[in-house]
Amino acid sequence: MNELGLIQVYTGEGKGKTTAALGLALRAWGRGLRVCVIQFMKIGEDYGEIIAIRKLGNVDLFQFGRDELIWKGEHTKEDVDLAHRGLEKVKEVLTSGKYDIVILDEINVVTFFEILSPGEVLKVILARAKNVEVIMTGRNAPQEFLDEADLVTEMRIIKHPYDSGVMARAGVEY
Amino acid sequence: MNELGLIQVYTGEGKGKTTAALGLALRAWGRGLRVCVIQFMKIGEDYGEIIAIRKLGNVDLFQFGRDELIWKGEHTKEDVDLAHRGLEKVKEVLTSGKYDIVILDEINVVTFFEILSPGEVLKVILARAKNVEVIMTGRNAPQEFLDEADLVTEMRIIKHPYDSGVMARAGVEY
Repeated sequence: MNELGLIQVYTGEGKGKTTAALGLALRAWGRGLRVCVIQFMKIGEDYGEIIAIRKLGNVDLFQFGRDELIWKGEHTKEDVDLAHRGLEKVKEVLTSGKYDIVILDEINVVTFFEILSPGEVLKVILARAKNVEVIMTGRNAPQEFLDEADLVTEMRIIKHPYDSGVMARAGVEY
Repeated sequence: MNELGLIQVYTGEGKGKTTAALGLALRAWGRGLRVCVIQFMKIGEDYGEIIAIRKLGNVDLFQFGRDELIWKGEHTKEDVDLAHRGLEKVKEVLTSGKYDIVILDEINVVTFFEILSPGEVLKVILARAKNVEVIMTGRNAPQEFLDEADLVTEMRIIKHPYDSGVMARAGVEY
């Protein structure tokens, strides 16, 4: 791709945000584009998407999270340090010239939780090599991201099975 | 998976419906689940997702479409025949015991265009082997599908770059 890379945001309460980003990674991989996935707030290998990315090969993956759920207002200094290290990696990746598609998984949540500010994230994204397409996922994308994005999709829940007691299942939800 | 398979619907005007289904296929493939993709209203190899699925191997793919866009109210007898052949394949696949995840790409549109009726499609889906998870994609999912589905997500456009004249790009949009 030599065209100008866009900024895409997948947000909303519904399912399919990370999944759509993953599908986009797969499609790009199919076309021989160079893909990098940077995950915030997640760590570990027990995700179908991680296993799949490892099996694909040729897609770079970096994780900056802890193996523990955190909630808004309850993050620790470790979370802040991890997020800043993640953002440093994003900067390196976006300016390296090595990638066509860079997925910043859960970056929206990192800013909603006020672990990073929307401004410091945008500064890094807007300084990217100009061909790079950036995909940002997570609930509660801040208005600053929506304003800068070229494409914003909201996933809305119309009906959800957790309501009727179905648990998240390996290979489907994660 | 030995649990009861759910019915998932991805609909709405926004991006990410086929892409999310594709991401789900990739995640399931990563976990070693058996995946089948049946595409309606699409044919040919020049889709990033098709190239990717071919490269993955081990995911079965069937297409029932013509290499031409059709519009609501303008389908031909050939489209009806293709859709019926597609539905026969869906029936075979859903009762075969060979798959854990079956993606029916654009099936919603097929019924919106009144090429197949929601009732005849649902009859086939409800008779599936009970472990099979079914994912239905496409705009304008009929109410009958929403009623039967366990999980419905609507992709809503908040902002779209085609508005500002960006064309669909290989590896990103298709």
